[in-house]
Amino acid sequence: MNKILVANRGEIALRVMRSAKEMGIKTVAIFSEADRKAPFVKYADEAVCVGPPPSSESYLQVDKIIQICKDLNVDGIHPGYGFLSENANATRKITEAGITFIGPSPEAMELMGDKLKAKDTVKSYNIPMVPGTDKAIEDIAAAKTIAEGIGFPILIKAAAGGGGKGMRVVESADEFEEQMDRAVSEAVSSFGNGAVFIEKYVGSPRHIEIQVLADTHGNVVYLFERECSIQRRHQKVIEEAPSSVLTPEIREAMGKCAVDVARSCNYYGAGTVEFLLENNKDFYFLEMNTRLQVEHPVSELISGVDLVKEQIKVARGEKLSFTQEDLKINGHSLEVRVYAEDPTNNFLPDIGRLNTYKKPEGMGVRVDDGFEEGMDIPIYYDPMISKLITHGKDRQEAIDRMLRAIEDYKISGVETTLPFCKFAIQHEAFVSGNFDTHFVNKYFTPEVLNIHNKEVEEVAALFAAKLFTDNNSKQTITNSSNKVTSNWKKNRM
Amino acid sequence: MNKILVANRGEIALRVMRSAKEMGIKTVAIFSEADRKAPFVKYADEAVCVGPPPSSESYLQVDKIIQICKDLNVDGIHPGYGFLSENANATRKITEAGITFIGPSPEAMELMGDKLKAKDTVKSYNIPMVPGTDKAIEDIAAAKTIAEGIGFPILIKAAAGGGGKGMRVVESADEFEEQMDRAVSEAVSSFGNGAVFIEKYVGSPRHIEIQVLADTHGNVVYLFERECSIQRRHQKVIEEAPSSVLTPEIREAMGKCAVDVARSCNYYGAGTVEFLLENNKDFYFLEMNTRLQVEHPVSELISGVDLVKEQIKVARGEKLSFTQEDLKINGHSLEVRVYAEDPTNNFLPDIGRLNTYKKPEGMGVRVDDGFEEGMDIPIYYDPMISKLITHGKDRQEAIDRMLRAIEDYKISGVETTLPFCKFAIQHEAFVSGNFDTHFVNKYFTPEVLNIHNKEVEEVAALFAAKLFTDNNSKQTITNSSNKVTSNWKKNRM
Repeated sequence: MNKILVANRGEIALRVMRSAKEMGIKTVAIFSEADRKAPFVKYADEAVCVGPPPSSESYLQVDKIIQICKDLNVDGIHPGYGFLSENANATRKITEAGITFIGPSPEAMELMGDKLKAKDTVKSYNIPMVPGTDKAIEDIAAAKTIAEGIGFPILIKAAAGGGGKGMRVVESADEFEEQMDRAVSEAVSSFGNGAVFIEKYVGSPRHIEIQVLADTHGNVVYLFERECSIQRRHQKVIEEAPSSVLTPEIREAMGKCAVDVARSCNYYGAGTVEFLLENNKDFYFLEMNTRLQVEHPVSELISGVDLVKEQIKVARGEKLSFTQEDLKINGHSLEVRVYAEDPTNNFLPDIGRLNTYKKPEGMGVRVDDGFEEGMDIPIYYDPMISKLITHGKDRQEAIDRMLRAIEDYKISGVETTLPFCKFAIQHEAFVSGNFDTHFVNKYFTPEVLNIHNKEVEEVAALFAAKLFTDNNSKQTITNSSNKVTSNWKKNRM
Repeated sequence: MNKILVANRGEIALRVMRSAKEMGIKTVAIFSEADRKAPFVKYADEAVCVGPPPSSESYLQVDKIIQICKDLNVDGIHPGYGFLSENANATRKITEAGITFIGPSPEAMELMGDKLKAKDTVKSYNIPMVPGTDKAIEDIAAAKTIAEGIGFPILIKAAAGGGGKGMRVVESADEFEEQMDRAVSEAVSSFGNGAVFIEKYVGSPRHIEIQVLADTHGNVVYLFERECSIQRRHQKVIEEAPSSVLTPEIREAMGKCAVDVARSCNYYGAGTVEFLLENNKDFYFLEMNTRLQVEHPVSELISGVDLVKEQIKVARGEKLSFTQEDLKINGHSLEVRVYAEDPTNNFLPDIGRLNTYKKPEGMGVRVDDGFEEGMDIPIYYDPMISKLITHGKDRQEAIDRMLRAIEDYKISGVETTLPFCKFAIQHEAFVSGNFDTHFVNKYFTPEVLNIHNKEVEEVAALFAAKLFTDNNSKQTITNSSNKVTSNWKKNRM
């Protein structure tokens, strides 16, 4: 493989290209008209504009992308996450055009993309699953009887769902039919597939996922877990590895289950098996994500394995160069996602220009981003600015380093999730490890940040008043360049 | 310890402050008039101008620095490297003023600062030493007889020397007296101390050093070795950890020797024991550096230990929180020093303005620097711009990542050591691990880089001509923002 095209944008495009460059592989960027000035476009060896926003006109134009590959003699396509990464039809087209798709087979995508098919596929492997139906509901009365057997509240889920979409909690038998109707119509409108099923509602779950890596020779390993319970709007915002609550025994049991899930669909490449963890010990298979995930860096930092390089090696047909026994957890890693969102306004996107944009640096700090100072955050895409990742010898050091890195991150022009993240990782529930997916609802209110803002203002005032005593001239001077740009004070120009 | 003053500048001041911040410790910067705009000044919680350049008027003004500490209620001083870091008298003054010196005792500095005293101190510990005299030479005729016994060539070294200064090779008995005279007068003029001694000249040595860490409770550990054989003008320019040639047995033997050297002078804090390695197996104690060293990050990345935090903990009287058995080598780390020097002109300093200054990023890349784009490199200090450090799962990945990071480092306005480093780490001798301290003399000529430059120019030309095909508008456009700034083409404005 001499040249790959990265069919994605932003931080993940840049991140993939860096690994390719380290392997001596040339890179091609595709970009939408809205991304013309993005760093990933400059970083690539070659770059081609693929169309205007939105994504349907550009990043999802698989035929155009294949044509670009042919024109530029591209050997492989890395899809990143989102866009074409779990699109079985696109994968087939790419492969049929003689281009290597750096990812799993379309068959594995299809099996794992449908939650009911996935349940069916893993059935023979004895994977623990949340009690519920394992077929699409056709007879509502029969389904209600099953729901009563499980006990309310129960959850109705869309087979094709994900990211919290097409999911409804049913509190009691009274509202069962009504919620079923809503769930089906939501599933149809969101996924074009009205199949829904029932699951027990786990009240206080942790979201824990296992990173797996498999080659095309039948070798499968797991690279330990990621704890992703801190979410807002059912989307992850803080992740860590390892989890603060898994015992070595549970870790191994989950790891083996994840490997079995991968085997059940003849998986190859990097993938993630998601579990719910209840009472810090009972775990249930939730779904498999057949792509590289946003939060993959925390696994890279504790394992030392560059997952993108491994994806490329697997796509080249190589065997994994390590076994399960070779893998060891080294220290602790934390990731916070920096979104252009206003945490005091329901985490709504806060699109604008990055007037100030200075990144933290130093030992154990990694910033995966796709922006430079002065750039506008495009309205067309997910408003993630960057992923701020720290690595420490233990969890406390990873947290201390993250707090330092958040302080050192200077962003103005947009509100970001950083103040929320700073609040969360200092919260007693997070520090003690005693939290679940309801963290935001339980503990977070905008007022919490207002208190925070006051502290920040005091500190900023202190800085602004900081005196520089010139001992030589015996003159007291104020260094105006030393004024602090607060992370959380908007300063639109 | 609530507040520390960093009695240093540039990258090391910034690096120390980051660790202090992670520990919740406030920081005070002192700066010379030449450093007023440096990032370390902005980073500190408080900053005080301590005088004009040169260092004798500012960074070495210990009385002024102590007064600043008193004025600002500073509890401790971190000296960084250079400046006051190995100055026993300054250390005594600081301690007598009731301020904690974050470093070893003045007695340990004095013992290890004089090579003859050091030899005497470690005598009872069975440390292997290069054959030679262990007292200052007073009788030249007797010394000549000893030299003949060892066999020429021999080395005359200044007891107070370091960094290659006050060192002379004597090829034969004929020139012994003449070289002795020169060595003594050089020692007097450089160090105010004419004591010299004789050692066997090791023809093909590797310079390998062991990082040690000791607390004030008698616990001493070693954090493995650093290979520092690639030097220009007797000064290190590329370092790595671990060494590519040490067996686990030799590593352990050297480590134990280093621990013994530390014990011999009741050492506490972070220190480095330097050895010569001959034939990849015979090692000799060279000297101990009683400070944090420039190249310490490679040890941090393979051990996971933040050495500055450990220094502060030891200075607070804490016990080491880990034992030798807890320490494991994790992967491989490489550091190249980015100096504003012209490798095609004998590595002479090339001071100027950093017109372009873009740092590499991504997994396993750490840049410890003290500059921002647009800054001038002051003429008063060592012209080091930064330390570029990579970490990989093995030596090959650390090298691949370093090559990628060097490519991604965009500097214009001054010449740098980067092209030399790129040449060196790709050289067959380096890749195979078969090199010694004569690497530069043996393999490097400016012509080697000229060839290199040609390649770079070709690549740059390719980039400049890179076409951006807009598939949507069917127009071919050239993206001018995509022109490459070559690392090695000066672009003074």
